[in-house]
Amino acid sequence: MAQLQRLAVNPAQICDRKIDLTREQQHYLNRVLRLQGGDRFIAMDGRGHWWLAVLEAHETGLIASITEEIAVNRELPVEVTLMAALPKGNGFDEVVRQATELGVGSIVPVTSDRTLLKPSDQKVERWRRIAAEAAEQSERQIVPTILEPVSFDVAVKDCGQKYRFICVARGDNRHLWDCLAALDPPQFRAGTGAPPLQRGEQDGGELSIVIAIGPEGGWTEGEVKRAIEFGFEAVSLGSRILRAVTAPIVALSLVGAIFEKC
Amino acid sequence: MAQLQRLAVNPAQICDRKIDLTREQQHYLNRVLRLQGGDRFIAMDGRGHWWLAVLEAHETGLIASITEEIAVNRELPVEVTLMAALPKGNGFDEVVRQATELGVGSIVPVTSDRTLLKPSDQKVERWRRIAAEAAEQSERQIVPTILEPVSFDVAVKDCGQKYRFICVARGDNRHLWDCLAALDPPQFRAGTGAPPLQRGEQDGGELSIVIAIGPEGGWTEGEVKRAIEFGFEAVSLGSRILRAVTAPIVALSLVGAIFEKC
Repeated sequence: MAQLQRLAVNPAQICDRKIDLTREQQHYLNRVLRLQGGDRFIAMDGRGHWWLAVLEAHETGLIASITEEIAVNRELPVEVTLMAALPKGNGFDEVVRQATELGVGSIVPVTSDRTLLKPSDQKVERWRRIAAEAAEQSERQIVPTILEPVSFDVAVKDCGQKYRFICVARGDNRHLWDCLAALDPPQFRAGTGAPPLQRGEQDGGELSIVIAIGPEGGWTEGEVKRAIEFGFEAVSLGSRILRAVTAPIVALSLVGAIFEKC
Repeated sequence: MAQLQRLAVNPAQICDRKIDLTREQQHYLNRVLRLQGGDRFIAMDGRGHWWLAVLEAHETGLIASITEEIAVNRELPVEVTLMAALPKGNGFDEVVRQATELGVGSIVPVTSDRTLLKPSDQKVERWRRIAAEAAEQSERQIVPTILEPVSFDVAVKDCGQKYRFICVARGDNRHLWDCLAALDPPQFRAGTGAPPLQRGEQDGGELSIVIAIGPEGGWTEGEVKRAIEFGFEAVSLGSRILRAVTAPIVALSLVGAIFEKC
């Protein structure tokens, strides 16, 4: 089941085990995700139901058929991106592994004022293999996407997530928990009577969150300031000083607890 | 400031920078903690205030003087014990390091049905060194106690903590978050008008929690059953299957968030 892409669909699009894909969804599956006839993906209705679907190519476009409902869904009901400054040495291997176990959707490795070295292509490939292994081991349906490393400035500027947090070790910022709890819309909790997704929401209908975690020594003041300019909120992960390899795990543990606890 | 012991005191015991120690407290400091005249400890009033105190030996017994208030308190307001099954290899080093960063009070390494090998004395000494290093790095006031390894059965039987949880990877148990949230008494939140501790509470006045985390492959059914017999509640850490090295970090992240978030 690993390595499948997800598509949010409106329950009204599903009839007789077929998904009536919109033009936008067909474009997204075919042009963005590069899927073709015969390829499988996961259709989600935003209410906690997931189905395994297979694409068929017809003259009129792509048609999707549901093959089975995914009974055990181990994915978070929110799309979480970890924007993590690269530590020295091999510390990032364990970050990728543990973040995957905790349900991360994407990881953006960033170079920062305190970690300038851009990793080799081999390293990125290695992280992708680790993510695939960890997704399988933790029985996830999805392998997180490991993006190409970029500079922190580009990452915060191009950030597409709706809710943006930057973790800062010192200072008097709000706890990430409080910020996440304030987002918690009932429609993202499993089992509640959520309204159906609207047309055109397939690309942004999920609650999307990005959490930026700094390198050893933390983000510089300038970095925090620039992130705030791009809509990030500075948050705390608690009283103690955490290492760069521990902070992402703490942040993702909180995301899991807040969105899965009910 | 590292490696100091803590003592809960009643604010009424403090007058003119002296702490009027009870007989029980003197016994605890001297006989249990093996402290003598000249030794320092941390006095806590249970309302978020901490003081560095020094003992003086007098004919009438021990007297404690406050030398300074500890302005930045990075310790959890609860006493958390991690009872962790020993993984194979060196995985426990990182568990000790990260658990220390997250504020653990004590770690009890346990042998279990799936991990029988008792670690060498050298390993235990190594974990104590790692705990001391990690406490310093995370700027904690206290170095967690690493207890001698014991069998799981002895550990659950001798367990002195009031609230006991055993994390189970599969099944339909309550999320640890919900269990912790139900405990959250307001007097353990910083800054609230908590009632003073009563005399004799210095040994048990804190909220004490133990969380048992299994080895790779999880606890056996028999182990979970025996723990429940000794007052443990089986809990979940979320939908995904976590490795033995990740689960303690998730559990301690939740403890930190729930007791420090306000």
